[in-house]
Amino acid sequence: MSKLYVIGTGPGDLNWLTPAAKQAIEQSTDLVAYGLYLRLLGELTEGKTCHEQDLGEEISRARNALDLAASGKTTSLISSGDIGIFAMATLVFELLDTSPKAEWSNVDIEVLPGISAMQAAASRVGAPLGHDFCAISLSDLLTPWETIEKRITCAAQGDFVISFYNPVSKKRDWQLQKAKDILLTCRPASTPVILGRNITRETEAITITTLEALDPTQVDMLTLVMIGNSESKVLTVTPEGKPSKKWVYTPRGYSKKLV
Amino acid sequence: MSKLYVIGTGPGDLNWLTPAAKQAIEQSTDLVAYGLYLRLLGELTEGKTCHEQDLGEEISRARNALDLAASGKTTSLISSGDIGIFAMATLVFELLDTSPKAEWSNVDIEVLPGISAMQAAASRVGAPLGHDFCAISLSDLLTPWETIEKRITCAAQGDFVISFYNPVSKKRDWQLQKAKDILLTCRPASTPVILGRNITRETEAITITTLEALDPTQVDMLTLVMIGNSESKVLTVTPEGKPSKKWVYTPRGYSKKLV
Repeated sequence: MSKLYVIGTGPGDLNWLTPAAKQAIEQSTDLVAYGLYLRLLGELTEGKTCHEQDLGEEISRARNALDLAASGKTTSLISSGDIGIFAMATLVFELLDTSPKAEWSNVDIEVLPGISAMQAAASRVGAPLGHDFCAISLSDLLTPWETIEKRITCAAQGDFVISFYNPVSKKRDWQLQKAKDILLTCRPASTPVILGRNITRETEAITITTLEALDPTQVDMLTLVMIGNSESKVLTVTPEGKPSKKWVYTPRGYSKKLV
Repeated sequence: MSKLYVIGTGPGDLNWLTPAAKQAIEQSTDLVAYGLYLRLLGELTEGKTCHEQDLGEEISRARNALDLAASGKTTSLISSGDIGIFAMATLVFELLDTSPKAEWSNVDIEVLPGISAMQAAASRVGAPLGHDFCAISLSDLLTPWETIEKRITCAAQGDFVISFYNPVSKKRDWQLQKAKDILLTCRPASTPVILGRNITRETEAITITTLEALDPTQVDMLTLVMIGNSESKVLTVTPEGKPSKKWVYTPRGYSKKLV
């Protein structure tokens, strides 16, 4: 039975790639991915046939991966982050369901998760995902804006910590401001906001700001935007003789026991 | 500066432990964790001083980890899954914030995320987390039930895929049934439900059922319960001469482009 690995490689640093995902890549002859994700893999791609396809060519990429695997080539379809979260995995199954080819049914599919952008960003600032949270894609290319707006409103009313994926792109520049406006109706202006960009990569940047000060023009498609809930806190720790460090955490209620 | 690693080790299989987390454990002299999590690490704990503390002793565990690190011992505080998600990381920062000791401010803290239970369960059945989702802990030990119920209601109204952590314990047996009742008011009875138990461990069990058929008495504290959104689908693939395999995915809307 031919094999298709569907792999999330984490935020970028190969030290955050699981051994299971690494082994799957090593066993593959063919890798299918957006070019940036292949470059992040460095030497792991050596000797492999790399099928680079651009952003926007997701359907073709998933079809290509299924076709390659069906032809007998051990294939990896690769995304950074977790391929199961706002990424290519769901498209593989959507194709299998809605426009299948007979030969695809003989492909043995294995999905291997990776560390997602919200987890990477959270870890750099402490523990903002310590209590109930949600993840919302702000891309309205495939989802009607009304659906997205409803979800933002419900997440705001439920006081969830919120991670926004795909917050901004060259063609989409107003959605994050709209989301901010909705959240300000339910949440304090001082609510902590985290911007995580290229976490674990050379150009890593982390910003801790507030909901009121969140400036959507400072956010791009490589940025993960995380909004604290009404109880999320910023904490400053100052080690002796060293600069202060800010942390963000969302308490789970242990303080009642700490009295 | 003394070091405290705050580490998520993933669902259990060491092949799903990131190299960054593994290296941190290797560099530590002292490991602090619930006993089960240490046993899952196997040989990695050899030669380390292991500080096992029971469930319910979370505050003491976090204090112990901070004290050990402050005393100069390179220490790892360990949870399975992602320690930033419904786990110990937030408690470390809550302690630093609300009942600090002076010596703790000189501890260099590094949080290393792991693959969380929802990601592990999702990967085994396909891509149920392919669109907007949330995670809710059903434990009302530290969070008032009214807050949890409000979040379930908002998540239901927003049509999020929902992962329930801590769905049931020996002392808490009615919350999951209540959550099911709320969801049935907003979501079809046929909505796919995934029960993932001990994923990647020897006793791994995955069940795909429906919201209507979800039986809370079949769920325990080691089970991750995931409820699809109104568009989540179950797909059956039958390879030649092999048994059928069921997959679950939540489409992102590519079908509009597939026509």
